[in-house]
Amino acid sequence: MNDHVLVINAGSSSIKFAVYPANGDWKNPYRVRGELEGIGHAPRLHARTSEGLLAQEQAPLSCNSPSFGPQEAVTFLVEWLRQNLGHHRLVAAGHRVVHGGERFSAPVIVTPEVMDCLQQLVPLARLHEPWELEAIRALARARPDLHQVACFDTAFHCTLPDVEQRFALPRQLHDEGVKRYGFHGLSYEYAAHMLPALVGERALGRVVVAHLGNGASLCAMRELKSVATTMGFTVLDGLVMGTRPGALDPGVLLYLIQEKNMTVQQVSDLLHFRSGLLGVSGLSHDMRALLASGDPRAKEAVDLFVYRAVREVGSLVAALGGLDVLAFTGGIGERAPEIRARICAKLAWLRIDLDRDANRAGAPIVSAAGSRIPVCVIHCNEELAIARHTCRLLQL
Amino acid sequence: MNDHVLVINAGSSSIKFAVYPANGDWKNPYRVRGELEGIGHAPRLHARTSEGLLAQEQAPLSCNSPSFGPQEAVTFLVEWLRQNLGHHRLVAAGHRVVHGGERFSAPVIVTPEVMDCLQQLVPLARLHEPWELEAIRALARARPDLHQVACFDTAFHCTLPDVEQRFALPRQLHDEGVKRYGFHGLSYEYAAHMLPALVGERALGRVVVAHLGNGASLCAMRELKSVATTMGFTVLDGLVMGTRPGALDPGVLLYLIQEKNMTVQQVSDLLHFRSGLLGVSGLSHDMRALLASGDPRAKEAVDLFVYRAVREVGSLVAALGGLDVLAFTGGIGERAPEIRARICAKLAWLRIDLDRDANRAGAPIVSAAGSRIPVCVIHCNEELAIARHTCRLLQL
Repeated sequence: MNDHVLVINAGSSSIKFAVYPANGDWKNPYRVRGELEGIGHAPRLHARTSEGLLAQEQAPLSCNSPSFGPQEAVTFLVEWLRQNLGHHRLVAAGHRVVHGGERFSAPVIVTPEVMDCLQQLVPLARLHEPWELEAIRALARARPDLHQVACFDTAFHCTLPDVEQRFALPRQLHDEGVKRYGFHGLSYEYAAHMLPALVGERALGRVVVAHLGNGASLCAMRELKSVATTMGFTVLDGLVMGTRPGALDPGVLLYLIQEKNMTVQQVSDLLHFRSGLLGVSGLSHDMRALLASGDPRAKEAVDLFVYRAVREVGSLVAALGGLDVLAFTGGIGERAPEIRARICAKLAWLRIDLDRDANRAGAPIVSAAGSRIPVCVIHCNEELAIARHTCRLLQL
Repeated sequence: MNDHVLVINAGSSSIKFAVYPANGDWKNPYRVRGELEGIGHAPRLHARTSEGLLAQEQAPLSCNSPSFGPQEAVTFLVEWLRQNLGHHRLVAAGHRVVHGGERFSAPVIVTPEVMDCLQQLVPLARLHEPWELEAIRALARARPDLHQVACFDTAFHCTLPDVEQRFALPRQLHDEGVKRYGFHGLSYEYAAHMLPALVGERALGRVVVAHLGNGASLCAMRELKSVATTMGFTVLDGLVMGTRPGALDPGVLLYLIQEKNMTVQQVSDLLHFRSGLLGVSGLSHDMRALLASGDPRAKEAVDLFVYRAVREVGSLVAALGGLDVLAFTGGIGERAPEIRARICAKLAWLRIDLDRDANRAGAPIVSAAGSRIPVCVIHCNEELAIARHTCRLLQL
């Protein structure tokens, strides 16, 4: 009977999960991973084990759609794992939690007091935090014997200097917590863990990691610690994303409300769900679809994504005072060689030079031998980072 | 009797003015310049001639404060000029107008139809445009014989490529004009005019001009044309300013309205009048006062100003694919050697090296002989740019 850790990444309509051996290391593969999606309307489960291509897919039994909420989803998942994990035993769970606020600069064992604190952070991340907390509560009911750990997307950025955290707003707002927290921290932490093996000592120098996915941000590191990032107080800022605009003149929001008579809720929906690649293209939020499209609007959206990424890399390079390593991660960063090539082409002035074949193949190092700056591709594994934190904190 | 041009830069509570010979060139000095300030509460006039240190200051006669509005201010100014210009005759007026929208990509002779168009742009610049248009109307009443020309702060940026103009918002908003216009164009135009004499052929290369004043922005130029800039749809975006925050996570605005229950008007006031250097320091919006202060909050405000300027320079350098020339202009850019020194120190990785003595003296070239990138100081003269446009358009 082997002890295992359940990793949960809960959203409004899906729960991603993975199961890792408790006594593993950073190289240990997952036992099973999958996603329960369509929660609230048409729930279905995809899962596969690490042993091979064996994939399972099934609709949750005995559940009728609308009454199958986050609570039911967690209960279903626990039962499904009990039936499918064989002789493997779950002993703990680690959760991805987007916002740790000012208090949580490291993963933490969940207690009622911790939950009270996290509940107070909900206004800072209304789109994510409520579902994450709901999953923790549901799991506590379904499996009260499991220890639970919360791992924060903000925590990696606790090393940001004051000048990076501060917006040029009245200082009272800063003191109340309106500041740059940064996100995608579990991805950056994993990248920081992998970089030394890829580029050696340079990993301790001036590094920019580009987490490019449906959400996207950049992180500037020195000595593998975050010193600057593009996402700010919320997940709206910085780079162009699937449906979010990234950096936006604050005057645009005032204009939409004051002159276009939009409600703040309409503006919020616009910025969270109808902007970014989807808004510009009018076609899709999905980079794969846009790259495959011949529509000139798709090209405009991709051009803007690349341009803004390049400008933000420049901004972080200035924060670092130069660049030693560039790394790509996240869905687009890992699987869109064309985007890597286009971004790097515009950064050639930094003496970045890609190896076309290595880039097309998605090799760990995609820069040419003569490139002054090594360019890496890191396959993001936030789940593994969560599993390791959980084991470490619980001394499993 | 020499023909002269009146230049007017009208704001909500002040009118800056200057009078230039109509037949002059870019080197011609003004005849008289000054400011009528305190309009609406305690109006007073400062003016001086170019001949020497002769300065005049007087309270407008026969005016009682509240009834002395923009209309009365223009009437007073016209009469004051009639009395004080001696044998010099005004034949035309040129106005600074902040927003030219999509239509006006060059200065234009004011007609009723032009005024109708400009009136429609008021929602894009409520803090500036109404007073500028009011000054044009008042002058037309006081001096119906004068031809008037409108010169736009947005016009210099009409060369911005689509990818720079576009926000990652639904394309319908872009098509309706919600896009990056850029401002301080008259300052950048003047800088573009002066650069070749300062740095020769390099002026046609990759140039960043930093207009640092109470309002602040950067402009990236190639071949002396604007290709990127930090201010966007409104004058709120980009760098830290005296009372404006510059770039700000759009999620902060949503938070202030949705969670802090601020009205949109309160947020607008916060971002226009209570943020920036003033908000961070809690002391002053004035860089001189902050540099002279020993208060740690003043230091934080200055640190943030410098840091954010450095990051934005990096962003524009990435847009340009490298840098050939850096130039400073605007009140802070021209008269705060410490700020120039601090920004350039953080840009040393671009092989920028200041000459300490030249920088302290505010010489036209402040970089050291061995600096790969020449660094210039340009004494901003938007009024002269307006006077030249006015003469050219009216064939004076």
